[in-house]
Amino acid sequence: MRTDLQYALELDDQDELARFRDEFVITDPELIYLDGNSLGRLPKRTAGRLRHAVERSWGERLIRGWGEEWFTAPQRVGAKIAHLIGAAPDEVIVCDSTSVNLFKLVVAALHAKPGRRKIVTDDLNFPTDVYILQGALKLAGQHHRLEMVHSPDGISVTEDALASVIDEETALVELTHTAFKSGYVYNMQTITDRAHRVDAWIIWDLSHSVGAMPLSLNAAKVDMAVGCTYKYLNGGPGAPAFLYVRKDLQDRLLSPIWGWFGQKEQFDMALDYRPAAGLTRFLAGTPTILSLSAVDPSVDLILEAGIDRLREKSVKQTEYLIGLWEETLKPLGVKLNSPRDATCRGSHVSLGHPEGLRIDRALIEEMRVIPDFRYPDNIRLGIAPLYTSFADIHEAITRLRRVLVERLFEKYPTERPDVT
Amino acid sequence: MRTDLQYALELDDQDELARFRDEFVITDPELIYLDGNSLGRLPKRTAGRLRHAVERSWGERLIRGWGEEWFTAPQRVGAKIAHLIGAAPDEVIVCDSTSVNLFKLVVAALHAKPGRRKIVTDDLNFPTDVYILQGALKLAGQHHRLEMVHSPDGISVTEDALASVIDEETALVELTHTAFKSGYVYNMQTITDRAHRVDAWIIWDLSHSVGAMPLSLNAAKVDMAVGCTYKYLNGGPGAPAFLYVRKDLQDRLLSPIWGWFGQKEQFDMALDYRPAAGLTRFLAGTPTILSLSAVDPSVDLILEAGIDRLREKSVKQTEYLIGLWEETLKPLGVKLNSPRDATCRGSHVSLGHPEGLRIDRALIEEMRVIPDFRYPDNIRLGIAPLYTSFADIHEAITRLRRVLVERLFEKYPTERPDVT
Repeated sequence: MRTDLQYALELDDQDELARFRDEFVITDPELIYLDGNSLGRLPKRTAGRLRHAVERSWGERLIRGWGEEWFTAPQRVGAKIAHLIGAAPDEVIVCDSTSVNLFKLVVAALHAKPGRRKIVTDDLNFPTDVYILQGALKLAGQHHRLEMVHSPDGISVTEDALASVIDEETALVELTHTAFKSGYVYNMQTITDRAHRVDAWIIWDLSHSVGAMPLSLNAAKVDMAVGCTYKYLNGGPGAPAFLYVRKDLQDRLLSPIWGWFGQKEQFDMALDYRPAAGLTRFLAGTPTILSLSAVDPSVDLILEAGIDRLREKSVKQTEYLIGLWEETLKPLGVKLNSPRDATCRGSHVSLGHPEGLRIDRALIEEMRVIPDFRYPDNIRLGIAPLYTSFADIHEAITRLRRVLVERLFEKYPTERPDVT
Repeated sequence: MRTDLQYALELDDQDELARFRDEFVITDPELIYLDGNSLGRLPKRTAGRLRHAVERSWGERLIRGWGEEWFTAPQRVGAKIAHLIGAAPDEVIVCDSTSVNLFKLVVAALHAKPGRRKIVTDDLNFPTDVYILQGALKLAGQHHRLEMVHSPDGISVTEDALASVIDEETALVELTHTAFKSGYVYNMQTITDRAHRVDAWIIWDLSHSVGAMPLSLNAAKVDMAVGCTYKYLNGGPGAPAFLYVRKDLQDRLLSPIWGWFGQKEQFDMALDYRPAAGLTRFLAGTPTILSLSAVDPSVDLILEAGIDRLREKSVKQTEYLIGLWEETLKPLGVKLNSPRDATCRGSHVSLGHPEGLRIDRALIEEMRVIPDFRYPDNIRLGIAPLYTSFADIHEAITRLRRVLVERLFEKYPTERPDVT
């Protein structure tokens, strides 16, 4: 495999998605941003949309904005995300945070399966998911418990290892579809089928998958899902999250957070909670409209680019990155902490080095490369095919090699930076 | 009492807060906006702040925005709100919605008082509060129950009526401090003392109070409180809410929603939930940074104006409005659905008329006056002393009288408009 810069430039030249880079605000062309898997870049159209949301919708229309635009925003933006994940328009809604949405679904699911007392997950899961499960199990009572499958290498979990603990006692399997550290991607269909074989439900956290690869929730008969919108969906810092519930389950599940936006006939202002039909019952309080306004312009961009083409480019880019690693970094003691097989790898690649934290700091502070770091040794390099170029990848690895060869990391302290 | 326009103009002339009106985006000077108690106007400085948050902090600083600004935003904005409500800076945090925050506190409180199985509230409470209580009680188990005190007139509840049901079985009293329909304001000190006498806790919902009147949560030894920021605090549509817990209770209470922003040493990414010290444990998922960025510029405005001066103006304005009602609307069959006594009245006045809904529509569509309507007959007129003038009030009542005298409402249908 060729890894030279000329080849990167050729690939960029042939890239039919290259024009999408111009859709983003890029003020510093020297900066190589490889953290779109934590916080996606700002689309130009989102900046315009937010000015409109603030200055026109709020500033001029005032309370009338609710009737004119805002009331239906959770459903309207949800329907767009549904297109991206292989769901029906009325199966996705945008509201609250991923953590809060997961809490609603887990408590609802445990309540709907009173005879089942176990939740299965793995230790590749994102911490907030595990905490939410622990909290929900504590609420459910002392006989409920979490069974956590451990990854032998921190990179992946075999389907067999997972399958062996999904049993008749299992109410729920909850997993992150693309692991936040290694980028390992589960086979959604296989694991979902396995849960269904014992009549358990599954919740997929799609935070590191949505916008980076095609997903087929309906085809796989997925029960429930959550995901954030500020990574590959470029929805902005802390943008509200989405929540998916398969159509035929919606009226069987009840959110534990009974808020007025989930009430049937909300403006009757009746004093007895009656859950709205469908997914609306999973809304709670008033949606954060300004943050929500930033989500759909970018979902439109992704729909325009086409999720299949984005995935194709992403695979080509992570392969190229791994080729560069093999040639220039592996000899320097850098490990690959991501799957080698592209079919079970998401859109970020983790490189492992005992000095990972300090290398990360040196990259940011001296090399104008922004990756991120995940304990204990992962330098995460996120590929956002909407705006990452092959030349970016070549240049980033060149700079990373320089940090290692010249030991530029040695001047940095070892304390942890606080970034998401 | 004088009620003529000349008098209104004189009062505006003497008003030392009049200059604050210029701090707001007002594009249509003919429009009289009396719904700042539902959605406050856009401060000019907030428009600038949001452009900065989007285009500079997100667009240019990207993930670095977390370390530079965003991580501490829930606490930083909370500390400003603390000034407004008589609390210490580390007793208030901004996150999630009012409904979600109330859910966290109610579940935490019930868990911390396992022997107590009753929550006391009243039917003047905002619906979402009542739904949240109902949902939390259902989670707690079949022996838990809600005791709701009924208002005889829809305007107020006597302290005696409330006191009579607060007993040794009561875990919690939860009330809206300023009633959303009538504007009735409870005596915070008296009711809080009454709850404490039987060792119950109290949660005040301050949504219709904060920014409209001085509050002294510490002086009254209030246990917990929540409130929204999009009414008198002008934080924008669906802006994140705040949550107060008295210092000495913070480490005794545990949110049921165990999210990563509430985790001690969040970036250790450990897989066992350990609640952070203090109020941070009440954070759950990633805060909605753009919406949150809109909150504090306006809190600064209120602190500059001074909450005592704002309350003084608000009382003068609601008195003036009631004077106009008495003289020009009462003879036409309009009722006063708010307390006559300013000491127990917030910053909005509800006028009752059997055709209230259609009158509201006529005011909006023909008269360029925006009040709102609350079932069954309340035309709510919100006074936001930062930008409402006495002349606004005179003109609004003049136009309202015209709608009645000329029966301009008759052409409107009777279905309910969906506005908050």
